[in-house]
Amino acid sequence: MTKYVYDFAEGNKGLKDLLGGKGGNLAEMANLGLPVPPGFTITTDACRAYLRTGKEPYGLADEIALHLERLERQAGRRLGDAGDPLLVSVRSGAKFSMPGMMETVLNVGLTDATLPGLAARAGDERFAWDSYRRLVQMFGKTVRGVPGEAFDRALDEAKALAGTGDDLGLGTDALRALVDRYKAIFREHTGDDFPQDARVQLEQAVRAVFGSWNAERAVLYRRQEHIPADLGTAVNVVTMVFGNLGPDSGTGVAFTRDPATGAPGVYGDYLANAQGEDVVAGIRNTVPLQELERIDKASYDELLAIMARLEAHYKDLCDIEFTIERGKLWMLQTRVGKRTAAAAFVIAAQLVDDGVIDLDEALTRVNGAQLAQLMFPAFDLSAGPRRIGSGIAASPGAAVGAAVFDAHRAAELAGTGTPVILVRRETNPDDLPGMIAAQGILTSRGGKTSHAAVVARGMGKTCVCGADTLDVDVHTGQFTVDGQVVREGDVISIDGSSGAVYLGEVPVQPSPVVRYFEGALSPGADQLVRAVDRILTHADKRRRLAVRANADTAEDAARARRFGAQGIGLCRTEHMFLGERRALVERLILARTAEQRDAALAELLPLQRADFTGLFREMAGLPVTVRLIDPPLHEFLPPLEDLAVRVARAEERGEDPGHDRELLDAVHRMHEENPMLGLRGVRLGLVVPGLFAMQVRAIAEAAARVPGACAEIMVPLVGAVQELEAVRAEAQGLLRELGVDARIGTMIEVPRAALTAGEIARAADFFSFGTNDLTQMGWGFSRDDVEGAFFTRYLELGIFGVSPFESIDRDGVGRLIRIAVAEGRAARPDLHIGVCGEHGGDPDSIRFFHDAGLDYVSCSPFRVPVARLEAGRSAVTATGSDTR
Amino acid sequence: MTKYVYDFAEGNKGLKDLLGGKGGNLAEMANLGLPVPPGFTITTDACRAYLRTGKEPYGLADEIALHLERLERQAGRRLGDAGDPLLVSVRSGAKFSMPGMMETVLNVGLTDATLPGLAARAGDERFAWDSYRRLVQMFGKTVRGVPGEAFDRALDEAKALAGTGDDLGLGTDALRALVDRYKAIFREHTGDDFPQDARVQLEQAVRAVFGSWNAERAVLYRRQEHIPADLGTAVNVVTMVFGNLGPDSGTGVAFTRDPATGAPGVYGDYLANAQGEDVVAGIRNTVPLQELERIDKASYDELLAIMARLEAHYKDLCDIEFTIERGKLWMLQTRVGKRTAAAAFVIAAQLVDDGVIDLDEALTRVNGAQLAQLMFPAFDLSAGPRRIGSGIAASPGAAVGAAVFDAHRAAELAGTGTPVILVRRETNPDDLPGMIAAQGILTSRGGKTSHAAVVARGMGKTCVCGADTLDVDVHTGQFTVDGQVVREGDVISIDGSSGAVYLGEVPVQPSPVVRYFEGALSPGADQLVRAVDRILTHADKRRRLAVRANADTAEDAARARRFGAQGIGLCRTEHMFLGERRALVERLILARTAEQRDAALAELLPLQRADFTGLFREMAGLPVTVRLIDPPLHEFLPPLEDLAVRVARAEERGEDPGHDRELLDAVHRMHEENPMLGLRGVRLGLVVPGLFAMQVRAIAEAAARVPGACAEIMVPLVGAVQELEAVRAEAQGLLRELGVDARIGTMIEVPRAALTAGEIARAADFFSFGTNDLTQMGWGFSRDDVEGAFFTRYLELGIFGVSPFESIDRDGVGRLIRIAVAEGRAARPDLHIGVCGEHGGDPDSIRFFHDAGLDYVSCSPFRVPVARLEAGRSAVTATGSDTR
Repeated sequence: MTKYVYDFAEGNKGLKDLLGGKGGNLAEMANLGLPVPPGFTITTDACRAYLRTGKEPYGLADEIALHLERLERQAGRRLGDAGDPLLVSVRSGAKFSMPGMMETVLNVGLTDATLPGLAARAGDERFAWDSYRRLVQMFGKTVRGVPGEAFDRALDEAKALAGTGDDLGLGTDALRALVDRYKAIFREHTGDDFPQDARVQLEQAVRAVFGSWNAERAVLYRRQEHIPADLGTAVNVVTMVFGNLGPDSGTGVAFTRDPATGAPGVYGDYLANAQGEDVVAGIRNTVPLQELERIDKASYDELLAIMARLEAHYKDLCDIEFTIERGKLWMLQTRVGKRTAAAAFVIAAQLVDDGVIDLDEALTRVNGAQLAQLMFPAFDLSAGPRRIGSGIAASPGAAVGAAVFDAHRAAELAGTGTPVILVRRETNPDDLPGMIAAQGILTSRGGKTSHAAVVARGMGKTCVCGADTLDVDVHTGQFTVDGQVVREGDVISIDGSSGAVYLGEVPVQPSPVVRYFEGALSPGADQLVRAVDRILTHADKRRRLAVRANADTAEDAARARRFGAQGIGLCRTEHMFLGERRALVERLILARTAEQRDAALAELLPLQRADFTGLFREMAGLPVTVRLIDPPLHEFLPPLEDLAVRVARAEERGEDPGHDRELLDAVHRMHEENPMLGLRGVRLGLVVPGLFAMQVRAIAEAAARVPGACAEIMVPLVGAVQELEAVRAEAQGLLRELGVDARIGTMIEVPRAALTAGEIARAADFFSFGTNDLTQMGWGFSRDDVEGAFFTRYLELGIFGVSPFESIDRDGVGRLIRIAVAEGRAARPDLHIGVCGEHGGDPDSIRFFHDAGLDYVSCSPFRVPVARLEAGRSAVTATGSDTR
Repeated sequence: MTKYVYDFAEGNKGLKDLLGGKGGNLAEMANLGLPVPPGFTITTDACRAYLRTGKEPYGLADEIALHLERLERQAGRRLGDAGDPLLVSVRSGAKFSMPGMMETVLNVGLTDATLPGLAARAGDERFAWDSYRRLVQMFGKTVRGVPGEAFDRALDEAKALAGTGDDLGLGTDALRALVDRYKAIFREHTGDDFPQDARVQLEQAVRAVFGSWNAERAVLYRRQEHIPADLGTAVNVVTMVFGNLGPDSGTGVAFTRDPATGAPGVYGDYLANAQGEDVVAGIRNTVPLQELERIDKASYDELLAIMARLEAHYKDLCDIEFTIERGKLWMLQTRVGKRTAAAAFVIAAQLVDDGVIDLDEALTRVNGAQLAQLMFPAFDLSAGPRRIGSGIAASPGAAVGAAVFDAHRAAELAGTGTPVILVRRETNPDDLPGMIAAQGILTSRGGKTSHAAVVARGMGKTCVCGADTLDVDVHTGQFTVDGQVVREGDVISIDGSSGAVYLGEVPVQPSPVVRYFEGALSPGADQLVRAVDRILTHADKRRRLAVRANADTAEDAARARRFGAQGIGLCRTEHMFLGERRALVERLILARTAEQRDAALAELLPLQRADFTGLFREMAGLPVTVRLIDPPLHEFLPPLEDLAVRVARAEERGEDPGHDRELLDAVHRMHEENPMLGLRGVRLGLVVPGLFAMQVRAIAEAAARVPGACAEIMVPLVGAVQELEAVRAEAQGLLRELGVDARIGTMIEVPRAALTAGEIARAADFFSFGTNDLTQMGWGFSRDDVEGAFFTRYLELGIFGVSPFESIDRDGVGRLIRIAVAEGRAARPDLHIGVCGEHGGDPDSIRFFHDAGLDYVSCSPFRVPVARLEAGRSAVTATGSDTR
C-alpha cells in the first residue's frame, strides 16, 4: 500500500518529489538533530490522488490519525484538548518553490473550547484571542473562500472603535469582540458555523492546501515558470511555535552568508515579539540579526552554530526561517538560498577555495543567465541617486533618458538625438516604433510576460515593468509618484536588472567582468573577476561544444576573440552592403542588361574581398564561416509606401518624380507578400547570375591573401539537396580555379532541410542550424509580426512559458534539429554541425544543443562567455538536470 | 557472375528493369514467334557498372563476343565479312521511354572493305553508299561528338553540286564523294580515321549509348519527368533490316486501335522504300496503313494477324514499328501505346466488355489526369476554324479573347470586360497582372516548365506555350504566322489541351462528362460517358478514401454532391465576409471599445448562421467541416499603398482625407511584414475576444435548425496543443449551452503541428492536413511570391520535377504527414484524418494520401470525380506502382 504520510524522522532532502522542498528540508534538519517543531508531511502522491478523484485516497485518513497521535505524544499535548491544546500549522510545500502562490493555515486546533487552555499555557489571554482571530480569518479565506476584504473591513472597524491605527492597540476585549464578528462573517459567507472540531479544521485545511495546487494563479505561475502541472504539492503539518509570546520571543530570517555579494558572515533580520507573517507584512521594522546577540545571547550562539552546520551540510549558502518562543530556538525552514549573480560566482569560487566543493560542482552553482547579467553596465550608485520607485526587472541593462509618454513623440525626439525612456501604463503593438526608438521602457502595469517585457527582451532593450506606485497619465504626459511629478523631458534612469527607477541621470559604469574580458582588468582584479575567471576557465576545460561568434566586421571579430570565440560561425555578408555600398546594390537591382549587372558585381567584388581579408587576418587561422547573401534584394531599396507617397505627392504638385519613379517601379516589380518566404538566400543565388560567384570569388581571393586563412562557405535557405549541389558545383569550380581550399556547407533553417538532412549531407561539409528561421517556419511565426502582436497573450495563456525565439522549442523545432543531426551524421559521419541562430547564446538552448550532439554554437560576441560557461555546465551535469 | 547480355530468346517484357522497355518487348515478340530480326540486349547493370567505373565491367566483352557469334550463326552472315557482311543497329532502351533523349547508331559493320559485299547482296550500289554515308554521319556525331552541322553543310554542298534539293537526287558517284568528304570531316574533328574495324565500331557505339544516359538533355529530362537518375539504359544490338531496298520494301508505324477515340480497327501509316528515320524526317508523305493491302497483301495480312495477336497478348492497345524488306515483314518494336484521355476510358471499358480484363485492371488503365482533361470544355471544331499554329499544351482549357501583347494593357482591357489572351514571346514576373486578367496565355517560346506554363497551371488558366512558328513582336503589338498578321484586339482561340491556336472565335462546348455528372446526360449517353460511368462506379466500390469537397456556399455544396462528394471537408468562413459584409468586418477592426466590437460581431452572427444553415440543408446529414476564420483581418481592408497614396494626394491638394486617414491608421497598426506567418487563424481567435465564439455559435445554432446536420468545427493554424485546448474549451462550453453535438478538430498545416501531433491528437477529434500551408512553411515558400519568381528556374535546374504546390512533396512535406498520421493515431486510435489542401484533388498526391493511411481527401467540387477515380486506383494497385 502506498505510504502517504512521513514523519520528519522518515524523510530527507532527497525526497523533494514526494515531500516537497519544505518538507524534505524540515526532515533533513530534524535528522541533523536541529530543533525543529515536531511534525509530519503528507506526500504529493496523496495530493495527486486527491486532485484526480476529488477525495482523499484510501488509507490517508488513518495514516494522518496515526501520525497525529505520534505528534501528540512527542508534543505532550493533544489536538482539541481543552486543557492544553496542541495547535498546528498546515502549509503547502511543492517540489519547486512557488512563492506566494499557495496556501497556509496557522493555529489549527484553536476553538471556543481550547482557547482557555492556550490562554492559560501562554499566560496571556490577549495572545490567545489574537491567535483565534487569525485562525478564523485564514481558515475562512483559504479553506472556505470568504473574501479577505470582509475580514479586513471588520478589523479596520475594530481599530477605529478602539481608536488605534495598529493591531497591537487592540486589547483582549476588542479581540474577543472581533472574533465574534469574524465568526459572523464566516457564517454569512459560508452558511456554516466556524468549525469547533479541531480534527475537522485539520482535515479541511489539508484539503484546501491540496486544492490550492490548481488555483488559477498557481496554474498560471507554473505555466510561466515551466513547472509541470501534474506534480502536486505536499502538505506539512507542524506543531505551532509562537514568536509573539513576549519580549523573550521573536522571529527572523537569515542567510549563512551575504546573498548580495557572497561575502562570508551571517546576514539576516530579526523581529522581537512577532510571528513570521508580521515580518512579511512589515508592520514594524526588523533589526539586523547581529542585535539578537544582545537580546538573547544563548539563542544567538545556538543559531550561529546551526547556520554553520547547515552551510557545511548543504555545502552552499542556506537561507533559514526561525522563531524563538520564550528563549527556545526553533528552526522553521531552510533551503539553499537565492543570491545575486555576483554572489553566485563568488560563493562558488570561495567554496572551492575552502575545499567544500570541486570545480565541476562550482560550475553547477552558477549559470549563463547570471553571467549575462554581470556583463551589463550598471548604475554607479555612489552619489546616492534619488530612487523614486521600482518595478519588475523585465529586461536587464541601465538606461537613461528623457521621459516620454507617447510612442510617436518618442520616435520623434529620439530622431533628434535625444535619448528617451518610453513611459506607458502598458504597451501595445502601436507603441512599437517608440519602443524601438527608446533607450528603455518603463510601465506601471504588467509582469514579466507583459507586452512591454516580451518585446523589450526580444529587442535586448532595458525594461522595468509593473512599477505600480507610478501613476502614469499619458494624456497630460506625466507620472506622479509619492507626490513627485515627472513630466515629458524630465530625465530618469531605469535599472532593468534590479527594477529600480531613479530621478535624474545616474552615471553608468561598465561591467568589471566585461572589462576583464576586454583585457582592461587582470583576472585577479577583484573577488568577482577572480571567481568568473576561475569558473570559466574550468568550463573551457570541460566543455565539448566549441564556441564561435557571429561577426560581420574585423572589429566584431577582434572583440569575439577577446571574449574567447574559437572562430566565426556566421558572417552575414549582406551587412557589407549597407551604407555607401547600398548604391551599388541598387545598380545591381536596376540593371537592365547582363553587362550592367556584371559591372555592378565587379565593383562589389573588391569591397567584399577587403572585408573578408580583414576578417581572415583578425581570426588568424581560426575558421570563418561566411554566409552568402541571404535577404531579398528589395530590402536594399526604400520602402514601398515611402516611394509611393513621394511619387504621388510629386505628381500632385505637377513635378516629375524622376528617380523615385524608377525605384517605385523596381519595388513594385520585386514586391513580395511574404518576403521571408520569397526570393532570398540560395534562391537568389540560383536566379541572379553571378551574384554568388562574385561572393565566392571574393572569399577565395581574400583567403589566398591571408596565410593560414580557414574559410567556410555557407549557403542559406537550402531546402533541397539539388539547390546545394548547384551552388556547390559552381563554387568548387571557382575554388579550383583560384587554388583555394574551403569547406562548403549549408544552413539548416528550412524545415524541409531538416527533414531531408540525410540527402543534403551528401553535398555538405557542414550544417549550421539557423534556429531563428527554423522557429519562424516551424511555428509559422514571422518574428517581426508576432512577438508584439500576440506573444503576450500566448504567455498569459501558458501556450508557451517563454518565447520560442528566446529559448529553443525542444518538442517542435528541437525535434527537427535532432532528426537532422541523426540523419546527417548517418549519411556522413564526419559532418561538422553547429548552430548560428540567436539561440546559440541562450543558456537553456545551449544545453539542448549539447544534448543533441552538436559540435559548436555560434552567438553574438557579447554572448560568447555565456555560451562557454553553459557549454561547460552542460558537460558536467546530467541531461535534463534542473537549474531552476 | 553477373549476366550482362541477354539473347532475345532469354528475355521477356517483365524484365524491363534489366533490359529496358524496348529490349523486353523485342524479347517478348521473339518468344511469341513473331518475325523479329535476330539480336541481343546488353543490360542496364552493364551500363550502371560502366558509368560508375568508366570502363566495361569484367566479362562483358566476352559475353558480347559470344552473343555476337550466335547472332552471326542465326543471320548466316558475319560482322566485318567482306563477302556478305552482317550490319547491326545499336540502340538505347531505358526502363522509361525518354523520346529523342538518347542515342542510336545504324548500319554498324559497314566499312570500305564490307561495302562491296552489301552492294552485291542488295544489288544496289547507291543504296550501299547511302548506308555508309549515314553510318559515318551518325557514328561521327553520336560516338565521337563531331558537330552535326559539319555533315549537314557537306550534304547541302553535295546537293548543290548535283543540282538537286533532295537526298534522293544524289547518285552513286555523288554519294561516294560525300562519304569521302564525311570521312575527312571525321578526321578533322577527331584526329582519327573513321574506324575500319567493324568490331571497334560496335564496341564504341555501345559505349556511346551507355554514356548518353548522362547527356545533359537526358539528365534534365529525367529530373523533369521524375525518372530516377541511377537506372541506366540497356543497349539493343539488332540485325539491320532495310525498308529502302526498292518498291517492295517500306516501313511503318501502327496502332492496334484508334488512339484518338479508342475505336477498334487498325490505324497507322506506311511509307514505301524508306527507313524509319525518313518517316520521322517527313521527307515524303506517308499513306494510310490500309493502302498496304493493295501494295503487298501478304505482308498486310501477316501484319494484321500479328497486331491482333499482340493486342490479345498485351491485353491493351499496342503501337508497333515494322519494316518490310523485299516482301519480308520484320517487327522492330512494340509497346503499350499512348492514347488520348477519351480513348483510355473507352478502350478500358471495351476490354472489360470483351472479357479481356476485369474492372480492377480497367481502373489501372486510366488515371485522374485523363479524367480531369475530359472535364474541361473543348472547342467545337465542326465549323472548321482556321488553325494558324500550335504549341505545347501547357495548361488545359479552351480560351477565347482579343490578342494583347502587353500585361498592363491586358489588365486594362480585361477591366473593361473584354476577354483577352495575353500573347508574349515568353513571360516573366512583371507579366503577372496581365496573366491574372487574361482568359489564357500564349507564348512563342519555352516548354512545359517555362514561366508561363508554371504560373498558368498554378492559376488553373489555359496556356499554350512554345508556339514557335509565331513571330511575336510585342513592340508593334502583333504576331505573324505564315504571312498572317494578328494585331492587338484580333480575336484568337487557344486550346490548352491540344496546343492548337485558331484565328477568330471558336465556339466552346461543355464537356459531355461534366454534363453527365451534372445530370444533363444519362450514363449511357455515348461510349465515353458510358465508359467513365462504369469505371468510376467501380472506383467508388473499391476505394478506401472517402472524397469530400471544399465548398463555401450552398451552390458549391449542391454541385459537389452531384459530383459525388460525401461531405464538405473545408468550408472557408472568411469567404462569407466578402462583398457587402466587408463593411461589418471593417467595423469590427475599427472598433475602439468592447461594445463596438461586440456589436459588429452580433451583426455578423445571423449572416453566418444563415450561411451554415444553407450548407447543412444542402448536405442533408453528410459531414460539413467548417473552418473558423483563417486570414489576417487586415486582408479585409484596402491595400496600404492605395490608402497611403490617396491620403498623400488629398493632403497635397489641401483636402481632408477623412475616412481614408482612419483606414490608413488601422492598416499601419495592423501591417505585417509576412502576413502568412502573422496574426491569423487560431491566433486571431485567441486574441480577438468573441470572434471564434460568434462563429461557433452560428454553426451550433444553424445545426440546431437542420435535423440531422453533422457539423465539424475546424481550428486553423494550430501549432501547439495548448492553442487547440483553449479554443476547444470555449467551443465545447457553447455547444453544451446550445445542446448541439459537433466534432472539434484541427488543421495540421504548421510544421510544428505535425511534429507534435501526438500531443495535439489529445485535443482533436479529427486532423485535416492543410497541405498548401504545410508546403509553404515546410519549404519556406510564399506561394504568391515564388511560383512566378523562380519556379521556372527551379524546374529547369531539376530542383523539382513538378511544383510542390501541384503535387505533394513526398520526402519533405510528406514526411511531416506520415509522422502526424502515425503519432496522432498512436495517441488516439479513432482519430479521423483527411486533407483539405489543393493537393486533395491532385492524382499523384491522392495516391500518397491513400498510402499514408488517411481517411478522406477534400478538394474543389470539380475535382471530386478525379479524386474518386484516383482513390479507387490507389486501392487496387500496389503502393508505389508507376503510372508513367
